[in-house]
This record gives sequence, structure tokens and C-alpha cells, in this order.
Amino acid sequence: MSTYPRSPVMGQMMDQPLLISSIITFAARHYGGSEIVSRRIEGDLHRYTFADCHSRARRLANALQALGVQMGERVATLAWNGYRHLEAYYAVSGSGAVLHTINPRLHPEQIAYIANHAEDQYLLFDLTFLPLVEAIAPHCQTVRGWILMCDRDRMPAASKIAGLMCYEDLIDSHTDDYAWPLFDENSAATLCYTSGTTGHPKGALYSHRSTVLHAYGSALPNALNVSSQDTVMPVVPMFHVNAWGLPYSVPLSGAKLVFPGAALDGKSVYELFESERVTFSAGVPTVWLGLINYALQNQLKFSTFRRTVIGGSACPPAMMDTLIDEFGVDVIHGWGMTEMSPLGTTGGLMCKHLSLPKEAQRKVLQKQGHAVYGVDMKIVDDDGVELPWDGVQYGHLLVQGPWIIARYFKDEGGDVLQDGWFPTGDVATIDADGYMQITDRSKDVIKSGGEWIGTIDLENIAVAHPAVMQAACIGIAHPKWDERPLLVVVLRPGQAVSREQLLAYFDGKIAKWWLPDDVVFVEALPVGGTGKIQKNKLREQFRDYRLPTA
Amino acid sequence: MSTYPRSPVMGQMMDQPLLISSIITFAARHYGGSEIVSRRIEGDLHRYTFADCHSRARRLANALQALGVQMGERVATLAWNGYRHLEAYYAVSGSGAVLHTINPRLHPEQIAYIANHAEDQYLLFDLTFLPLVEAIAPHCQTVRGWILMCDRDRMPAASKIAGLMCYEDLIDSHTDDYAWPLFDENSAATLCYTSGTTGHPKGALYSHRSTVLHAYGSALPNALNVSSQDTVMPVVPMFHVNAWGLPYSVPLSGAKLVFPGAALDGKSVYELFESERVTFSAGVPTVWLGLINYALQNQLKFSTFRRTVIGGSACPPAMMDTLIDEFGVDVIHGWGMTEMSPLGTTGGLMCKHLSLPKEAQRKVLQKQGHAVYGVDMKIVDDDGVELPWDGVQYGHLLVQGPWIIARYFKDEGGDVLQDGWFPTGDVATIDADGYMQITDRSKDVIKSGGEWIGTIDLENIAVAHPAVMQAACIGIAHPKWDERPLLVVVLRPGQAVSREQLLAYFDGKIAKWWLPDDVVFVEALPVGGTGKIQKNKLREQFRDYRLPTA
Repeated sequence: MSTYPRSPVMGQMMDQPLLISSIITFAARHYGGSEIVSRRIEGDLHRYTFADCHSRARRLANALQALGVQMGERVATLAWNGYRHLEAYYAVSGSGAVLHTINPRLHPEQIAYIANHAEDQYLLFDLTFLPLVEAIAPHCQTVRGWILMCDRDRMPAASKIAGLMCYEDLIDSHTDDYAWPLFDENSAATLCYTSGTTGHPKGALYSHRSTVLHAYGSALPNALNVSSQDTVMPVVPMFHVNAWGLPYSVPLSGAKLVFPGAALDGKSVYELFESERVTFSAGVPTVWLGLINYALQNQLKFSTFRRTVIGGSACPPAMMDTLIDEFGVDVIHGWGMTEMSPLGTTGGLMCKHLSLPKEAQRKVLQKQGHAVYGVDMKIVDDDGVELPWDGVQYGHLLVQGPWIIARYFKDEGGDVLQDGWFPTGDVATIDADGYMQITDRSKDVIKSGGEWIGTIDLENIAVAHPAVMQAACIGIAHPKWDERPLLVVVLRPGQAVSREQLLAYFDGKIAKWWLPDDVVFVEALPVGGTGKIQKNKLREQFRDYRLPTA
Repeated sequence: MSTYPRSPVMGQMMDQPLLISSIITFAARHYGGSEIVSRRIEGDLHRYTFADCHSRARRLANALQALGVQMGERVATLAWNGYRHLEAYYAVSGSGAVLHTINPRLHPEQIAYIANHAEDQYLLFDLTFLPLVEAIAPHCQTVRGWILMCDRDRMPAASKIAGLMCYEDLIDSHTDDYAWPLFDENSAATLCYTSGTTGHPKGALYSHRSTVLHAYGSALPNALNVSSQDTVMPVVPMFHVNAWGLPYSVPLSGAKLVFPGAALDGKSVYELFESERVTFSAGVPTVWLGLINYALQNQLKFSTFRRTVIGGSACPPAMMDTLIDEFGVDVIHGWGMTEMSPLGTTGGLMCKHLSLPKEAQRKVLQKQGHAVYGVDMKIVDDDGVELPWDGVQYGHLLVQGPWIIARYFKDEGGDVLQDGWFPTGDVATIDADGYMQITDRSKDVIKSGGEWIGTIDLENIAVAHPAVMQAACIGIAHPKWDERPLLVVVLRPGQAVSREQLLAYFDGKIAKWWLPDDVVFVEALPVGGTGKIQKNKLREQFRDYRLPTA
């Protein structure tokens, strides 16, 4: 693949490809006794070791071979975080096929579209998704077989799916006598589609090399900081951007791994944290909201939970304060995207911040943070000119690195790079210390009188108001200023605040010309398959809205 | 280079080679303000930032280009740990040439041999080594120019070296307008010769790929655990195995970097630790001995020093106890070798050990520890058959991985691998948790009656005796048992112990048949260029020794 010139003198090191199979082999050999605990769809807790996982992954690899799966062919999953899903991660990629994780929260039509576009040959799924699979199966043209990931006694007596296979039967009918093949590290390993707020979802096709390098980078102390003294629970789903790489970074670190399955409510997560002595977890803000509310309502503390990475969307400052001040949990911001494997930056303090007062430290932690070594980034204006790193000027955020896509699967969308850089679609500042802060999505930023207004700042202020549960800010056409901000708000149950009171709440917190021109109260905001507010739908909804100032 | 089969479906990720220049570029862009503090040969402390370092490294790269240095050519250094040496690390490798670090503790004839063997084109050196360089220069046939790494006003008025250049002049006469070239990541980057206790030294020729992968692996939480909250002082020299990769792993982590220069005595190291608030350091046991003695004698504690990696040779249990119990410094064992870039394993506790009593934890910490992800290892018997990981059976330790050599530079020594594995020359056990423990060097192990006796255990017991300063155990020919152990001891000044008392001290600590057959007291033990006891010389010295039992 590489077309770079060779030196007349080459290094004399072992030529070993960076392959995903090397991670599970390492974990099984060097940390073979470390535990993997999974809350199963069946209801109980399942526990075994990395050595067991390696054995079953090799049995699955034999089974896939017997089913005729060829190198490069796609094998899909529709599954929660659990040990069988982990086995599929290693068996599919390790054997040279491509693991295609499908997000079950997408619309069934989108799932069928994705399965057809990926040309999935087999689809492995959890019992939860049997009705979904029965609905989409007739529309999936390439799938040769459906594999239900459950014990034999849980298999449905009858199913609309012809020739439905039982995962445990497959495992039982093969030995673990399987040698992981060696192949070019740039071979495709996993496939994940973007949520696609506009147009069809597009696939990011990761390689073995990019996945292994991402595993190294994301496990670093400055990033997710995973060690053999940790017990890690990925709440972030394995069905979307590989649970931020934790299914790879945890085994290579020898940590204990805990999977929550489908039970992501506050009570279930809390109880699993306590019973398994989880030290570190990663997830999106909405999950932590449920956990925090459960703990506060029941006056509970965490015995072992000390650190969390929060990503997907920014951690609201109030949530960060609660986690740190009430529960003693360190909060690390993670930022990335499907196209970045996904990790780009992580928050955290440097030496020089350790002596700062709490409030000043909190300001640092609220930023999306430093690039992980392997990722470079820059901000540019509309003409592509690089902007200074002063923490004030903001521009389109571009990224570069070996775990960032060069193009989408099957070249959907054509050339996506700008001079070799991937445009993230985010607008951000970067300060002199290298801390990046997202101020908006490029398509959400409000252009008012030739200047940009970042909507995330406005939304953060709004949700800090005690009466406000959710807020979204969108640009509304304005005859004089081109666009002006409209704040759309969902109130907390039983709470009230007037338009004027809420606008007054912004006083002194932002520049005067950033103040929203109006506030609208709604019952709910449109939310997509990955839990993010769909601003394009909101803009559609308020397309004919007329601002009082217009 | 890679000849592995390609999948019909390749990943769609950016094709970026893993190059050493990407590390300093990253540090300068993302942690540009992080400090590098160096105790200079000139005597004062020098301080600047990663951004400054990057700028000067590029000026040096321009200077090397102007001197006609071609891609793949070797440029040597004879230098202490300091900022100019770091600039050379990046300028030489980054520009595509090969950095050849020479160990100044080797004999001048060996240095000349190495410089000729490597075909060094230029040699950069510290003022300390001017007499050494004047002595070897006439014997170095390929060196086209000599560069003294000092300020202009420190340049000697006259020198035997024709056309001696001043480093600062070179830097001053070029701009930092230099773009690091992109080339194949398997290109040679750095060259380091083994200490070579027998025969000529042999060169390990690292690639950019191996160096970057080693930087990722060695910075992991389970390994050296370097973060942007650390202040790191590499005491381990940059002139030998790249200071365990710290000149790479620290910049990619954005930590503050402190260089001790030539002042490695206890007082100097202590004062620099305190004044620069060092949190983490790495070095060989002898350096820590000096530091500990200075601190104990002056009843000093460390204000910020919290963690050390000790390697090169095993940390004596008594030293580990003192560091942990008296000074509150966490001790991590590091094991590796020149042929391994050098990191192979690091010690440390897992989750399951955290609740153990102190003594049991200490037993775990005394082992050489877990392989870093990227390294695989196994133990085999004399016939190459793999032995079980039970912590009891010991065998020849073999290793494999992308930062381990496949052959020596210029194929010295011919085929060195055994079925694709590199034989370390160490004898070790590995326990069920994956902890490796070195019991001996393969050539030092004593073969008695068909069984092996590990000399390191015997030596550790001996040095734990209050009267013993140093001890070495060697095999002496024996008519009945083939070989039997002889203990050679250096007493502490003013201390005394008899042969019988010392042998009685082993009672209950080892199997009876391991007990040395005799004890000899000497004034000093032969020590080589890297500070290790030269057992081959000791065996030579006692070749005609006759055991009382023989």
C-alpha cells in the first residue's frame, strides 16, 4: 500500500503485521486469567477469562470457515455489549473477514439499506433484536445465514427466518484448533456506518493497522489510560464505533472487562459497578444522567468507580461538577467521530494546572482537550487558511492520522479530504496549550452579520438554568443579519420560566450580540439513532418561524 | 518490506508512515510550551520548550543537509543526556539519516571499531569527550567531520582534530525552514551496538516503524506510564539503547523533560529532582544506590519523586524496600535488551494483588513482570520445547515482536533467530499470571548433576547480608557434578563475615543442593562498559580454582 521512498538502508527489525488477532492472543497468553463479566440478555451474569474468550473466538473462526466465509467478506452483528459480541469481534476480523457492527437504533429501513450496501454474508444478533431481524430479513439480499447469539434452550420454537442458526451450536460443533492467519496489516478489519443525519449512511472501513494503532493511542495515559489495575465497563456500545476501541484497548492492557448488556438504566449500571468493582467506564452523557439521578435519589456513593470518559456529545458542565464534586469521579472529555476510529482528543489537566483553583481547572476540563499522538488537527477559515491557536478564533476543524479514513467505503461521497486532511464538520477553537474546544457543528453554526455564533455555548448556558431540561439553538433567517439564534427549550417537569427570565439568565455570560432573539418552549426535541439532537429536523420544523426582531 | 497476502478488501484509512519526525512535530504543535530542562556540560541549567527544540532540530537538519549527509548514512553521537543530544535524535533520524549513539564507557579501541564498522560520516560529541575523540579520531576512517556540541566561547583554542566544527555555529548558520521528508517507515532510523562481552560489538539497527511502535508501547500505563502531568528525568543514558525510548515517549506524552547531563552523583540528581519537581525517573540500580545513600546520609525526603523504573540489571530487593518504604517511591522493574529497542517487560501489580499484604506484593514487584503489548515471549528447554508457565520451571527466554531485531547490522553473527524467535540469552520462569522472572543468563547458569542452578537468586541472598557489598556466583568445574557454584564476594568497608557464617546465611532460603561449595573474598569485581559485572572475566580469573568438595 505504502508508496513512500525507501532508504538505501532499511531497519533490521522483525516484520510482523499489526493484526487484531495479536491483541486477543496477547491477552490470552499474558493476562489469560483476567475476567470478562457480562450481563446477559438471558438475565444472568456470565463470567469467564480472556483465555476462555480466545478459545471460543477460535471455535467461532472455525465455524465461519465451515460456513464458507471468505477473506474480505462482511459479517454483521446486531448486538449489545457482551462476551459473544467480543468473540465475534476477534473471530471475524482475526480470520480475515470484515466485522460490520450495525447500530440497532437506526430505522429498520436504514439497517436493511446498510446490510445490502455492505453485502453482509452472515448476521449475528442478540435475542432482543429477533423481531427487528424478522422484519428486515426479507429485504436483505446478500445475507446467507442468520445466527442468534443465545443458548440453545432460548432459541425460538418457530421463526419467520428460514434456517436460523444457534450461536452456541456453532461454537459447540467446532474445536479451538485454529491458527490466526497472517496477512497485510492494511487489510480491512471492521466496518461502521455513520449515523447519517442527511442522506444515506456512509461506511468507515477500518484496517487492522489502524485498529491496532488506535488501540495503542487510545490506551495511553493521556487518553483512556487503561491498565491492568483497572476494571473497565464500556457502556458506550460495541455496535457503534467499536465502543471507542475498548474491546481492543482493554485486552491489551489486561484489565478486567465488564459488559452491561442491554441494561443501561441507572439502577442496573449502578449495581453492576458496585458488584464488579468497576473503576473506569465510558459513555455518552445521557447514560450518566440516568446513573447520577439514580444515585442521588437513593443517596448512594460509588465504592470503586473513579474515572469516566464522556463523549458522543459534550458533557454538560453541571454534570461534570456533580460527578467530580458529589461523587469524586474524574471526568475526561473524549472527542472523536466514526471516521476517526473514533478517538481524536481527550481532556485532562497538565502539570501546570494542578495548582490552579477548582473553577479554573474545571474550565480546562470542559474543553475537548489534546490530540492523542497519532492525530494531528488544525482549524481553518472558509477559504482553508489555517487559523492561530489562541483559544479565541474558531474555524473548521480538520484532522489527519493513520486511524482516520481517507475515503468512505465504496467511495460514497467521492473525495472527502481537503489537501489530505479530513474535515470533521465541527467548528472549534484551539488554545496555546493545544486544548481544542468544539464550539459547534459547521452546519449548525449561526452566521450573523458575517460573524459566527456557536450554538453549543448558548445551549450549555440554557441547560444550566434549573428549569431547563434540554435546549437546542438554531439559526433563523433574518433580513438584516442573515441569521439570528432561536433557542428551543424543553422544561423540566413541573418547572416554569418565562422567555424574558431565560434571556435575562444569559446576561454577562456571553457577548450581547450572541443573545438569542427568541425562545420557544416545546414538549420534546427530535433525537436520532445515536442519541443526538437532530438539528436539521428542528430547522425544518422552524423553517417558517419569524423572529420578533425580523 | 511486508510480503504478507493482501485481503481482496483493503481498509480505507489514511496512508501515513510511522516516522520519528512525527513525534517532535506532535510535541511542538500540541504541547509546544512544555519545558525541556538540561544540566549542561557548561555547568548551568538550560531551559527551553518543545517548540524551541523542534525549531533547532530543523536547523540542524538543514545543517546536515548542507554537509552532504545522505539518506541512510550514519551520524554518530558521543554525548550525555541533554537538549542538544535530543535535537540530534530528531534531526538525524527525521531527515532520513541514521543516528548512531556510541557508548563512551566502552574502550577507545572498541569505539573506533564501532565507528568504522558503522561507517559513521559525522560525529557529534560533548566537551567531556574531547580527549577521547582526539584519541580515536586518527583511527576513524569514515568520519568526514567532527562537531563539538558546545557554545562557541567554549570551543578549544587549538585541537588535534582538523576542521573541528562548533554545533552552535552550525545551528546559527541555518534557518528552521525545513519540511521533514516522508519515506518508508521501515527505513533505518537509529543504530546501537551491544556491549559485547564476547567478541566484537554487534549493531541493532532500528527502523522508524519499530521506534514509533516502541514509543507507543513503552508509554502505556502498564509500562512506563508517561503522561502530560509528569516531569520525567531519564537518568538512563541516551548513548545506550535510546534511554529506554524516553526521548520519544516523553515528547509524545507532552510531559516536562529534565536531563541530568554528566552529573549522575547522588547530590546532583537529588538537587535536580527537587528543583525541577521530577515525578518519574528511570535508571540502573547503581545510580539509585548513589541517590539513596545521599538522601539517607543527609536525612532528606523527595518532594515530588513518586515513581521509578529500574532496569539494566535487577533491582536488589533491599533497594526496592528502601525506595518504597523509606521514600514512598513506587518501583517498577523494567527488563529488555539492546536487541529489543529495549523494552520487553515491566513489573507492577494487577487488580488482584492490591489487597495482598506488603510482603506478598513485594514478591510480585521483584519479578521482571508482564510483556508489553507488542512483545510475545516463551521459555524453552535445551531442545527448544516450550515449557509451562508455572513460575517454577525455567528455560531459555525467547521473544518476538515488531520492535525486536531480526538480524544484526551487516548480518554480523549470521542467523540469530530460532524459528522466528530471538533468543535473549536469559534464563527465566513465567508464572500463571504472566509474570516473567529472570533467574540467570544462559551462559552463567550453573549445570549441576543435569539440573540448573540460577546464580541471580544466590547473589541476591548474599547481598542481603549486611557485610556484603557485591557478590557474583560462577560455576566451577567439578568431577562428579559437572559444575558447582562458587560465590565471589566484595565486603562492605570495615565489615567482616567468615565463609562459614555466610554459607549458614543461606540456610532455609534455597534448596540444599544449591548451596555454594565455597566462598572467596575479593577487593573488586570486573565491571564492563554498561556497569554490569563481567562474569566471563571472573570465570577466566577462577579457571584453575579448585573447590574444596572436588
